Amino acid sequence: STIAYPSFAEYEDACRVYQHALTFIAVEEVGHTQQMPDGDALWLAVPNNPTGTVQSRDTLDRLCRENPHTEVIVDTAYGELCPQCEPLTGLHEKQSNFISVHSLTKTFGIPGLRLGYVIARRDTIDALRALSVPWAVNALAQEAGSYVMQHYRDLLPDSNALCREAALFREQLRTVPHLTVYDSPCHFFLARLETKHTAAELKTFLINRYGLLIRDAANFRGLSPQHFRLSVQEPALNEALTDGLKEFTIHHSSLITHHS
Amino acid sequence: STIAYPSFAEYEDACRVYQHALTFIAVEEVGHTQQMPDGDALWLAVPNNPTGTVQSRDTLDRLCRENPHTEVIVDTAYGELCPQCEPLTGLHEKQSNFISVHSLTKTFGIPGLRLGYVIARRDTIDALRALSVPWAVNALAQEAGSYVMQHYRDLLPDSNALCREAALFREQLRTVPHLTVYDSPCHFFLARLETKHTAAELKTFLINRYGLLIRDAANFRGLSPQHFRLSVQEPALNEALTDGLKEFTIHHSSLITHHS
Repeated sequence: STIAYPSFAEYEDACRVYQHALTFIAVEEVGHTQQMPDGDALWLAVPNNPTGTVQSRDTLDRLCRENPHTEVIVDTAYGELCPQCEPLTGLHEKQSNFISVHSLTKTFGIPGLRLGYVIARRDTIDALRALSVPWAVNALAQEAGSYVMQHYRDLLPDSNALCREAALFREQLRTVPHLTVYDSPCHFFLARLETKHTAAELKTFLINRYGLLIRDAANFRGLSPQHFRLSVQEPALNEALTDGLKEFTIHHSSLITHHS
Repeated sequence: STIAYPSFAEYEDACRVYQHALTFIAVEEVGHTQQMPDGDALWLAVPNNPTGTVQSRDTLDRLCRENPHTEVIVDTAYGELCPQCEPLTGLHEKQSNFISVHSLTKTFGIPGLRLGYVIARRDTIDALRALSVPWAVNALAQEAGSYVMQHYRDLLPDSNALCREAALFREQLRTVPHLTVYDSPCHFFLARLETKHTAAELKTFLINRYGLLIRDAANFRGLSPQHFRLSVQEPALNEALTDGLKEFTIHHSSLITHHS
């Protein structure tokens, strides 16, 4: 298996459980290399998490065509919330090695229900079915999922508004000293502390003082202990987080000055 | 792996997915053989489904002791509903190769939530945790499970009453011609049609004519297409099922006479 990084540690963990030999490729390289590393499967998130990197439909099409012996598995969990992501419908008919994994729980705000689905050619689905746990989805989640699928367009959040709000949030955050904020076409994005203090310390600080939770990104391959991921929230919460970050970075940069 | 049969096809299916070499042992033999077949794991349900066969705590203790290189995995899904089943608490401390699998969904009437747990020695649990899917149980099921565990004794059904009712149901059923009804210490039990017609045909007949659902047991290893499993219900439903069975067996035994 080849895994595009930085990405969730779960892809890597799952591949190790099934004793795959692992190769890694930087997510920015995916659309640009001539030839992917040899491997039975490529694991890729579009948009990528936590960077928000997007691959075009053309890039994915070409990847499948140029690597006919590789299953190209695209996790689209955040796709519906990202206006830059093109719909991938129909790519499955064109490229038989294209597999997309979809999540309802992020898009429709029902993370507790753990609901998703896979689109792939029939024999891949049959093979997955044989491997899947009986009753993997419980009855309440099935009911909710059926409701969501019947009211899909009505329930879909306004992703343009969400990403505009995220851009405003990033502008606010750029007033925080000792902090790098990365661009992203999604409602989530990466940030990095430019101090010796870690995202883990920041996380504890923000929970204790502000009751706010950030995603420490230290366990993402290719990122550092200073990296963390933020998602846009209501304006009041975005402002509280900006204040909390300022308090932390100012306080801790002075600590560094004291000690060094 | 060794599987005690007849039992759910899922044990066998899961072992095949992981490419286990399979051996089978009749569930009645389990307590009586000198030595189990060689194997890394023994899969056994107590009480067994669909036969209701119970192994004593002493038998399980001895099985673990006499087969130290075998993980003895006991599915206790129906244990709390069977008055003959002894509690297995503490056996894990005594025998490190004893693993019990528990279900909350049968006992507490919440099958839709797919909730259960495993008791085993710490390193087995750690190994299972590494293999388990992230968020295997959703938030609603977790809430329900936590409620059940806090009110365990209060919510537990009266298993003695349930099994007395099942015994009355079996007596009723013994008035049905061309039908064998097996004893069981549980609220469920096996039955067999003594006609050329199958349980699958009976199932369709009962759904269409009575709106009643039986469990066709043809896919249980060691059973025939004439076998099916019944569970005790409210008296009115038990009576309706008895009537339906009579109608079927009388009607179809006359058909057999006509044709043979």
